[in-house]
Amino acid sequence: MKGKYQPLSGWRKKLHEIVYEADTTAGKVFDISLLVFIILSVVAVMLESVPSISGNEYYHNFLLSAEWFFTIVFTIEYIARIIAISKASKYIFSFYGIIDFLSTIPGYFIVFGFPGQNLLALRALRLLRVFRILKLARYLNEARTLRRALIQSRPKITVFLFAVLMVTIILGTLMYLIEEGNPNQEGFVSIPESIYWAIVTLTTVGYGDITPQTPIGQAIAAMIMIIGYAIIAVPTGIVSAEMVKSTKEEISTNTQACMACSKEGHEDDADYCKYCGEKL
Amino acid sequence: MKGKYQPLSGWRKKLHEIVYEADTTAGKVFDISLLVFIILSVVAVMLESVPSISGNEYYHNFLLSAEWFFTIVFTIEYIARIIAISKASKYIFSFYGIIDFLSTIPGYFIVFGFPGQNLLALRALRLLRVFRILKLARYLNEARTLRRALIQSRPKITVFLFAVLMVTIILGTLMYLIEEGNPNQEGFVSIPESIYWAIVTLTTVGYGDITPQTPIGQAIAAMIMIIGYAIIAVPTGIVSAEMVKSTKEEISTNTQACMACSKEGHEDDADYCKYCGEKL
Amino acid sequence: MKGKYQPLSGWRKKLHEIVYEADTTAGKVFDISLLVFIILSVVAVMLESVPSISGNEYYHNFLLSAEWFFTIVFTIEYIARIIAISKASKYIFSFYGIIDFLSTIPGYFIVFGFPGQNLLALRALRLLRVFRILKLARYLNEARTLRRALIQSRPKITVFLFAVLMVTIILGTLMYLIEEGNPNQEGFVSIPESIYWAIVTLTTVGYGDITPQTPIGQAIAAMIMIIGYAIIAVPTGIVSAEMVKSTKEEISTNTQACMACSKEGHEDDADYCKYCGEKL
Amino acid sequence: MKGKYQPLSGWRKKLHEIVYEADTTAGKVFDISLLVFIILSVVAVMLESVPSISGNEYYHNFLLSAEWFFTIVFTIEYIARIIAISKASKYIFSFYGIIDFLSTIPGYFIVFGFPGQNLLALRALRLLRVFRILKLARYLNEARTLRRALIQSRPKITVFLFAVLMVTIILGTLMYLIEEGNPNQEGFVSIPESIYWAIVTLTTVGYGDITPQTPIGQAIAAMIMIIGYAIIAVPTGIVSAEMVKSTKEEISTNTQACMACSKEGHEDDADYCKYCGEKL
Repeated sequence: MKGKYQPLSGWRKKLHEIVYEADTTAGKVFDISLLVFIILSVVAVMLESVPSISGNEYYHNFLLSAEWFFTIVFTIEYIARIIAISKASKYIFSFYGIIDFLSTIPGYFIVFGFPGQNLLALRALRLLRVFRILKLARYLNEARTLRRALIQSRPKITVFLFAVLMVTIILGTLMYLIEEGNPNQEGFVSIPESIYWAIVTLTTVGYGDITPQTPIGQAIAAMIMIIGYAIIAVPTGIVSAEMVKSTKEEISTNTQACMACSKEGHEDDADYCKYCGEKL
Repeated sequence: MKGKYQPLSGWRKKLHEIVYEADTTAGKVFDISLLVFIILSVVAVMLESVPSISGNEYYHNFLLSAEWFFTIVFTIEYIARIIAISKASKYIFSFYGIIDFLSTIPGYFIVFGFPGQNLLALRALRLLRVFRILKLARYLNEARTLRRALIQSRPKITVFLFAVLMVTIILGTLMYLIEEGNPNQEGFVSIPESIYWAIVTLTTVGYGDITPQTPIGQAIAAMIMIIGYAIIAVPTGIVSAEMVKSTKEEISTNTQACMACSKEGHEDDADYCKYCGEKL
Repeated sequence: MKGKYQPLSGWRKKLHEIVYEADTTAGKVFDISLLVFIILSVVAVMLESVPSISGNEYYHNFLLSAEWFFTIVFTIEYIARIIAISKASKYIFSFYGIIDFLSTIPGYFIVFGFPGQNLLALRALRLLRVFRILKLARYLNEARTLRRALIQSRPKITVFLFAVLMVTIILGTLMYLIEEGNPNQEGFVSIPESIYWAIVTLTTVGYGDITPQTPIGQAIAAMIMIIGYAIIAVPTGIVSAEMVKSTKEEISTNTQACMACSKEGHEDDADYCKYCGEKL
Repeated sequence: MKGKYQPLSGWRKKLHEIVYEADTTAGKVFDISLLVFIILSVVAVMLESVPSISGNEYYHNFLLSAEWFFTIVFTIEYIARIIAISKASKYIFSFYGIIDFLSTIPGYFIVFGFPGQNLLALRALRLLRVFRILKLARYLNEARTLRRALIQSRPKITVFLFAVLMVTIILGTLMYLIEEGNPNQEGFVSIPESIYWAIVTLTTVGYGDITPQTPIGQAIAAMIMIIGYAIIAVPTGIVSAEMVKSTKEEISTNTQACMACSKEGHEDDADYCKYCGEKL
């Protein structure tokens, strides 16, 4: 980020370190404070949505004041981020730059009394900002192993989810044809709704808002459940296998280095360096 | 397919390559276009089933036109497939040949105004045709590992599912005997329905349309759930073990043997034998 | 079975082979026929429990005749089993002997018109008899690996299920205390029912017949679900680990036998017999 | 516990062995009796909560007598624990000391007729005391492997559960915005309740007390379910990997090294070094 553009100097460099990095004490304090403000502001948005709280005048005013406060804090942060980077557009049009903007703006609408119901959505975006701060977690060993296993599982999981989707479309259509004519039936009114039912069933969620009424429908539903029971094993198997592999890689960090070529990564039972043939 | 019969020549050979294979650019374009048409036609069938859409005259006419279009496209494709093969009966009576026929025919009934409600089922069969095009996915590495693990798990999964079925029949019968006489009970009216309930419970779907009302029934239901909780581990364990094996086989496919000591099992990045130090 | 008592001779020996064993053709035919009869008789019991079928005079009479037939067949089988063993009491008081008796007797009550409602339970026991015939499945390789993994997992699974039970009792009591006073609440009327709810929730079955209504109750329920989500991993992990081990043992059946001491079970990378030190 | 303070002598030392340890016969008898009393007292608390039982005068009086008995027993135990330790405050302010006190006190309130409804909670705490006695289970091999796998999985599981919580907050907020304006909708009245719904759905519990009614809401719900289906694999994968590792460590604990070639990794049943043939 710093290499390509003219380097920041003086107080802007210092601000950059505080706002964008977390190596210094000031940077850590900034990140943790921001994390707390984001979480509190999201909690405020949640509480505002509860009718019994937003209906109470005292609480409503308190939440409005909080909104004022958070809007000002996030505005200052937004300005600081623009100043502390040598090329402002790089931040403004980045993923987090857009989220910062969109999640701060609705605060102004609300505090100035514009009708803000639809803008509530944007304020909830603030939660996404937590992830930026949590980027640090990437350096935690645990999260790294988890990430590696997940990234390596992704192609297999994608293939699997596509297959699941195909199965639910076919089974949903089948159930629509079976249950649709039944006079006692209140669900299964269209194929998309039947597919929704098939997903609810196959994933073992089972709301029960739509249930088969005919004996044939129940038999097929039972079949779907047993299939779902068996295929839930598949993603688990995929991730388990990757985790076993990841864990193994973690373990087998044989730290022995060849004295001739100084390469590492030898197997535990190796007697000779596999790269240069020197005796270990 | 080509070996046994008199080989196709000229334009029929070219058509074969386009229609049945996917090695050439034309073949790929054909497959992808077909995939898009199949998906769109299935979406059209789905939308038609939604009462608020099929009741609207404008949408209804649009979907009817779409049906005309898809029926013509799939008819042309069907004819092309017959022409492009040296022995037409081989295609016509194949699995996909029959599906192609059955899923195209109802289009004619609908566009000519025959009562087509029952034929809707056949149009949904079009979705199965997607799998033919997706056969290509077989060559994807991810899908291959997945397939291998699944195929090798199949016998164990079958044994397991059979055992689950036996357990649900016994537990379902038991619950019928316990809950049947209870005046507040609306479900458990017959053994098959009780078995349906046992499957819903054991697979942790839990619709809640049928629930035990007596204390004893609830105690047994709780027991079934805990059993289900424990045995869901079984298919997962099976697939996980196979995935671990498959993943391992994927890794350890280095078949290189040392020329000095003839030992195998070298890692992919090994240049020297790890047992005797000879160059590989 | 034969060693301890005076050996059977002549036709009784032959009968023993047919009835108790499955090595001869006659024995296999006997087992398969019995399997079919058991399944059909259980299906008949199920159908009889469906009100719309048992209410219909024609079906009712048909099922009564079937019951006659199955009762006679199973009586003959029971007598044959007593005759074909040198010490009859050994069979009569064995697990399957008792099941055979209990599941045959109610047939007589029904066909002679005694009030048989409560005896229905005993007829359903017939299903358990299927397992005797399926004992053969024990020799199937698949079932064996599965059995071994399950048996080795049992102590861990038991410890786990005990822990789950403790957790549900504590959480159920907690929810009773929270939800009990709520006027909108229809469930959570007693601690046992709250524990039932906790099991329904923790196992992710989620009927929805009892749901928390207070915000605190919903918060705790959400916590229970997330805990349940995490701990469902435990039995799966246990069985997976055992399956991986079992599968590995299956693979590593190095069939090499030492030429000096003729012992087997050497590891794949062994150069010397680990029992006697002879070069392999 | 004994090293730091003045050692107990005579009968107090003996009492310590009975009350705090389980090596002697008397200690085992004490622990098992206590376990039985705790379980019976918890069962009594449960039964008392059932309206049909506590309403019956005979049962009510029986349970009151039982409460008398258990309160006296646990009081004696509490006093014994204070006497049998050289520094009483060490026990009194320990975790189990506080639980013992809090779970015994409400018994007095109840037997002396104080209004005890709110104190019921404290009596249920008795169940926690079971864990003290079950501490012994720690020495069971099974529980140890399980514990090790769980403790090693904890950091990964924590990271995972945090991620799940973030996802449910975002998805819950999204669903609130979509479903809130729908006139048929009875749930999704606030963001916290929507988050509760998202947890119920993602963990595949699926009560069905709150379900999406709009097509968009159902589509997003279906998406959440499929995501939940895929991510349930993650904790399972984590624990499986740890279990595989734990099981492996359990196996390969043979630390024997060959005296000739000093290689390790011999199997438990090996008598001769598998690498050089020397007797181990």
